[in-house]
Amino acid sequence: MDFKEYAIKLAEQARAASRRLALLSAEKKNGALLAMAENLEKSEAEIEAANRKDLEAGEKAGLSSTLLDRLRVTPKRLKEMSEGLRQVASLPDPVGKVIDERTRPNGMVISRVRIPIGVIGIIYESRPNVTVDAAGLCLKAGNAVILRGGKEAINTNRVLASILTRALGETGLPAGAVQMVEVTEREVVNELLKLEGLIDLIIPRGGEGLIRAVVNNSRIPVIKHYKGVCHIYVAASADPGMALELVDNAKTQRPGVCNAVETLLVDRKISRNFLPPLFERLSSKNVELRGCDSAREILPEVKSAGEDDWFAEYLDLVLAVRVVDGVKEAIEHISRYGSNHTDAIITEDREEAEEFVRGVDSSSVFVNLSTRFSDGGQFGLGAEIGISTDKLHARGPMGLEELTTYKWVGRGTGQVRE
Amino acid sequence: MDFKEYAIKLAEQARAASRRLALLSAEKKNGALLAMAENLEKSEAEIEAANRKDLEAGEKAGLSSTLLDRLRVTPKRLKEMSEGLRQVASLPDPVGKVIDERTRPNGMVISRVRIPIGVIGIIYESRPNVTVDAAGLCLKAGNAVILRGGKEAINTNRVLASILTRALGETGLPAGAVQMVEVTEREVVNELLKLEGLIDLIIPRGGEGLIRAVVNNSRIPVIKHYKGVCHIYVAASADPGMALELVDNAKTQRPGVCNAVETLLVDRKISRNFLPPLFERLSSKNVELRGCDSAREILPEVKSAGEDDWFAEYLDLVLAVRVVDGVKEAIEHISRYGSNHTDAIITEDREEAEEFVRGVDSSSVFVNLSTRFSDGGQFGLGAEIGISTDKLHARGPMGLEELTTYKWVGRGTGQVRE
Repeated sequence: MDFKEYAIKLAEQARAASRRLALLSAEKKNGALLAMAENLEKSEAEIEAANRKDLEAGEKAGLSSTLLDRLRVTPKRLKEMSEGLRQVASLPDPVGKVIDERTRPNGMVISRVRIPIGVIGIIYESRPNVTVDAAGLCLKAGNAVILRGGKEAINTNRVLASILTRALGETGLPAGAVQMVEVTEREVVNELLKLEGLIDLIIPRGGEGLIRAVVNNSRIPVIKHYKGVCHIYVAASADPGMALELVDNAKTQRPGVCNAVETLLVDRKISRNFLPPLFERLSSKNVELRGCDSAREILPEVKSAGEDDWFAEYLDLVLAVRVVDGVKEAIEHISRYGSNHTDAIITEDREEAEEFVRGVDSSSVFVNLSTRFSDGGQFGLGAEIGISTDKLHARGPMGLEELTTYKWVGRGTGQVRE
Repeated sequence: MDFKEYAIKLAEQARAASRRLALLSAEKKNGALLAMAENLEKSEAEIEAANRKDLEAGEKAGLSSTLLDRLRVTPKRLKEMSEGLRQVASLPDPVGKVIDERTRPNGMVISRVRIPIGVIGIIYESRPNVTVDAAGLCLKAGNAVILRGGKEAINTNRVLASILTRALGETGLPAGAVQMVEVTEREVVNELLKLEGLIDLIIPRGGEGLIRAVVNNSRIPVIKHYKGVCHIYVAASADPGMALELVDNAKTQRPGVCNAVETLLVDRKISRNFLPPLFERLSSKNVELRGCDSAREILPEVKSAGEDDWFAEYLDLVLAVRVVDGVKEAIEHISRYGSNHTDAIITEDREEAEEFVRGVDSSSVFVNLSTRFSDGGQFGLGAEIGISTDKLHARGPMGLEELTTYKWVGRGTGQVRE
């Protein structure tokens, strides 16, 4: 197979479809989304059969039980996918929204109007629900999407994609609007990443290794986050009860996700009072603490944290703990070791909160909130295509609006430039 | 000289300065801008002496008179630079502006707040005014800037940068806020373009060759336009007098710039009536037309236009002319040959205008306006750092707002995620 030719064919079909999608009404796009949802539900047996193939192959290949679980499409998960599509259909269409408008002294009217980005490539790992979620969000925002899922989910993804494509056909939308890369070789991805004239944006979703590989090989802009090394800083004025609740929630409610807290910073002034009850509470939930020297003076039973721990995204029931001298040192630490994902301060001091909010250069900065709220749904975006720690275009949780760009429209009556 | 070490030093100083700049009040930044303006005016003799060196070297090196003219800093141009800084000082500060804010059902308040991008690298060619304009805009938006001008302007740029830096010192701002690359070797640029952790954005300004070289070597996001192949489509319902005025203005008012029109598309239905008076009018202004076969049937005296002409950015008194069958064919042509810069329709038919506006995927799309209006000042942005034909972050003219990004700020009272 000629991978380059295949990649170009996919991208050209997507490009052609994107030009038609950009002109579609919300009704038309919503109709397709609802048809997709219905078709998924009608095809439960077909999906399960394909998924069984992937699961059997995965077992043979010795995938861990965590990976096998991610791969599995249960009836409940299938229902979540179709409900997700219905929810996206119910969200307002961002396309065509006028962002700002001004009339210039010469009478011309200049406006900025939201439009789709065009063609988006999504490169992800094992969860097949990403196939459906990403297709729905991209379609609603008027973009054509090229989906490249993990090798281990290829049978499931192929079937899901064919069901989605069928719905496109039934509702008069171009098949190029949602395309799945049907071959598993990595060369196809590398060819896709070179097509900067045909694909406008790449969103990788997965582990840091996958994301770095995509960034290093792409000539197309990539929006991503490498990892979430999230911090909570407990200031001297923090309400200790609130601090215990928030740290506990941010660490234990779902430790394997990118917005779980990984490093706790505690002001020296309260460290003697705060750390022992924290240790007790988290130990009862099987959280392992790793501390700096000052923390270990107070909690001699915890292991020592080294430079690697400050950079670590544990994604596990482990928490690094460092005692710092005030908010400035907390900001310094986050600036040096953080990943620009989500960082929170717990404080009753408004000024200190503002200093933290202004000084921490992360995509989401919280005051008296669990880092676990860093999520498109929680923010009220309605849906989420991913989280960005980049500086350009979109930061933090990305919803439908973040899948659009804008054009300037100028309307005049024959004005010329003097 | 170790170019890598030098690049890292510049970038680290810029990064450190950017963290301080992000926290500065508008008053403080405006004070520095005004001091820069004043210092420039006081240093006229010093600037002229440095500029004379560059001009003499340029003459020796055989630079064209156009290039020498671009290089020259006249008292009038110096005044424009300092007045430009004063104007930027008078513009509202985009930093800290709350873009949107929502209170979630659990009581937490989520807002999106404008912040500086961080460290910006500007890579440009011979005009020394870019040194001052870019420094002023970046500073106002709270960004540290690394300036890399053309080799032929190095003496002028060094002096300008040292004057700007002096003003920073006088007003208590970090010197790292505005830094000039003081060596002319290209290797430094290539080293800078690798520093993705320290520099957040690169804006190249200059010819297509320069921009392609930057894009191909950069690991840092680049915002740019390669060229401006701008179109005007004269629809069948166009007011012919308005059409003549607009095409004339778009071609001749300043032919050497990126928003001048390069290709004229004319609806076949009016081509016999429209093209002869257009030819007469433009010929009288020394514009050379190059036409498709249909155009040459009407205007046998014009040269034949080939595929290269449709892609050409002449930047000169040359205009390609093509007869098309209606707005769809015009959109097709622009989609194939255009550069996503600025394209205009002239029509009295509202529906057709909307079809053009929706169908043309350019950063600026105009109705009954000269393409020459595609400019930050004309749009009312107050100032312009450049024009983007990219899809992400910023499109079209970029002003102060486009030199910022945002962070999400969440404020709560101890909410945890269930």
